[in-house]
Amino acid sequence: MGEGFKDKVAVIGVGCTKFGDRFDQGYEDLAVEAAFAAFADAGIEPERVGAAWLGTYSPYGGHGKASVSLADALRLYGKPITRVENFCATGTDAFRNASMAVAAGLYDVALVLGVEKLKDRPIRGLGREGAHPYHGDGITAPGIFALAANRYFHRFGVGREALAKVAVKNHHNGALNPKAHLQINVTEEQVLSAPMISYPLGLYDCCPTTDGAAAAVICRADLAKQFRDDYVLVKGLGLAVNTGRPWSDPNFEYIGFDSTRAAAAEAYRMAGVSDPLAEIDLAEVHDCFTWTEISNYEDLGFCQKGEGAHFIGEGRSSLEGDLPVNPSGGLKSFGHPIGASGVRMIYEVVTQLRGEGGPRQVRDAELGLVHNLGGPGAVACVVVLGR
Amino acid sequence: MGEGFKDKVAVIGVGCTKFGDRFDQGYEDLAVEAAFAAFADAGIEPERVGAAWLGTYSPYGGHGKASVSLADALRLYGKPITRVENFCATGTDAFRNASMAVAAGLYDVALVLGVEKLKDRPIRGLGREGAHPYHGDGITAPGIFALAANRYFHRFGVGREALAKVAVKNHHNGALNPKAHLQINVTEEQVLSAPMISYPLGLYDCCPTTDGAAAAVICRADLAKQFRDDYVLVKGLGLAVNTGRPWSDPNFEYIGFDSTRAAAAEAYRMAGVSDPLAEIDLAEVHDCFTWTEISNYEDLGFCQKGEGAHFIGEGRSSLEGDLPVNPSGGLKSFGHPIGASGVRMIYEVVTQLRGEGGPRQVRDAELGLVHNLGGPGAVACVVVLGR
Repeated sequence: MGEGFKDKVAVIGVGCTKFGDRFDQGYEDLAVEAAFAAFADAGIEPERVGAAWLGTYSPYGGHGKASVSLADALRLYGKPITRVENFCATGTDAFRNASMAVAAGLYDVALVLGVEKLKDRPIRGLGREGAHPYHGDGITAPGIFALAANRYFHRFGVGREALAKVAVKNHHNGALNPKAHLQINVTEEQVLSAPMISYPLGLYDCCPTTDGAAAAVICRADLAKQFRDDYVLVKGLGLAVNTGRPWSDPNFEYIGFDSTRAAAAEAYRMAGVSDPLAEIDLAEVHDCFTWTEISNYEDLGFCQKGEGAHFIGEGRSSLEGDLPVNPSGGLKSFGHPIGASGVRMIYEVVTQLRGEGGPRQVRDAELGLVHNLGGPGAVACVVVLGR
Repeated sequence: MGEGFKDKVAVIGVGCTKFGDRFDQGYEDLAVEAAFAAFADAGIEPERVGAAWLGTYSPYGGHGKASVSLADALRLYGKPITRVENFCATGTDAFRNASMAVAAGLYDVALVLGVEKLKDRPIRGLGREGAHPYHGDGITAPGIFALAANRYFHRFGVGREALAKVAVKNHHNGALNPKAHLQINVTEEQVLSAPMISYPLGLYDCCPTTDGAAAAVICRADLAKQFRDDYVLVKGLGLAVNTGRPWSDPNFEYIGFDSTRAAAAEAYRMAGVSDPLAEIDLAEVHDCFTWTEISNYEDLGFCQKGEGAHFIGEGRSSLEGDLPVNPSGGLKSFGHPIGASGVRMIYEVVTQLRGEGGPRQVRDAELGLVHNLGGPGAVACVVVLGR
């Protein structure tokens, strides 16, 4: 299944707001800014959009109103707008659903928009709902990933120094990026001596809480040349959902994520990627915590399980490495407004594939990967994009 | 666009729980019951499902966990599951997204599941979120639709008696349906003398608050014969979103819904329907309030604007009429667990098209329509199904 999907859909425009503490803009303001940036980038008027997908985790808590909010913000009336929510993989899954609809021939041009306002009021656990079942026991997002990181440390003899290298790399990249939330460089010493959040994850091992929006305009690939010559093609899509209660299985080894492995396998199969390390030129992966990025290297097939600390240690994922990861600065530095993140990653990979990355440009970028991870590692979505 | 979509996707199995006060079952229990009924109806094992779409408005408040909840409930691990939310059109829009993915060739077989637990704790306004912007002024769902009904009465000289006829019809149909929430017959006198909720809408003009789940298994139409001979084809899909603030336009005439008209136009175009009254044999429409059904007759093109009271008065939408509407009992009698309703309507239309409606069977059912309306009439989704 999906063999014929490759190269049927093109990305012709992308847009992204400044991420950060955006008390100056409301939910709909952010949506408008990202969408109109993408329209301008694609060279289209809003009327050209046949349908839209909105990726947003907490519209009501964030003072948006899901599909209706996007209609009102963009005056996009009388057209199909679907809200998709899939934990922290919300943005990429919105992109996936839009791409399938375009591939099915129902719409020539579609808008994908991710937006989240997380700073306006406190969040309990991952979500705003007090009754969120993952957090009923007091286990928060840092707590969940700390459990896994500890198990991984125990199994592979890795320590906090490996995590610190991820923070240093991603803050370095983000400091080159004017849209990133935290445009600061940090040293390994600063990361290791920062206040502890949930051992082994200190303050600089955790992504910040951020507001922001990002958008992409996609179209049928056979129409893409009408809009621009340097369009980017969707090569493969993968989504996989696993148990939300991994710790209830006594045999569960919490050292990585089956969801990422399954989603990547599906996306690689569609895209015809057999050797990800050799074929993929850059990747935006879900570094909600520094340890997650190390696990992602392994789960995405860039190296073997247990080898992720060497991968970062040898500089292979740095801007100058053989597979630069999170050239944007990642969730760590760019920020993580939940539903916006996946679309923001698509924005970054498209920018890089066009050679417009400026000081953070990756060399010879022809094939890029986007990866989101959600829930307690239960949900993963992978998108492969190429020239 | 969408010309080639007709007849590419088939419904091969449907399932539905008893709707009602389901304190005996949790969110995941309801999902399991509906899904396994649909699997049995399609004659498949769960493993055959390539991807799933979950329609649910309030998973966290309803003690589910969106996509992860469906994975755990069905042990559907390592596969794509997307949550779609679109106000009260959530279930039909989940079906729409699943149908487009199958039409795009990404999955041979897909599951669509709608589920909602609304009875476990009080709901503020339409939603559970206190900050829901529609209800910040104290305007509730009955209040919104009462505004429209009053305006409609003023414009067309219609009174509460017309609304009462809708309640009598739908309760009559629901009393024939063992899965309906309120299996009771009511008289016009009872409806007219019931306690007033928001003038002109009395108690029997409002749908109840209900728990329930419904499911559909769809597949590529060219594979449908492998599963059953009497499969049902998806003929057309339409979704339209309009402003969430209709009352902010001083020229707005609140006598019907542009969203329904746009969604129906799109679905009719794909399905090749030019005369809905003549071509459609039965319809499940969104009767959240009795007045809404009258407006729907008009907005869906069954009669002219302002003629809906005559349409119900002449019995044309009764089980024996020329276009039976809500043979299931509708939201009015069957109940309205938000995300479940659209999929439940698909369950009913498929059941009728197969001739399995029992005492509520419609004659010569070959082409059926499903219609959801959400928000303050802002969102509408229409699905046309046929043999």
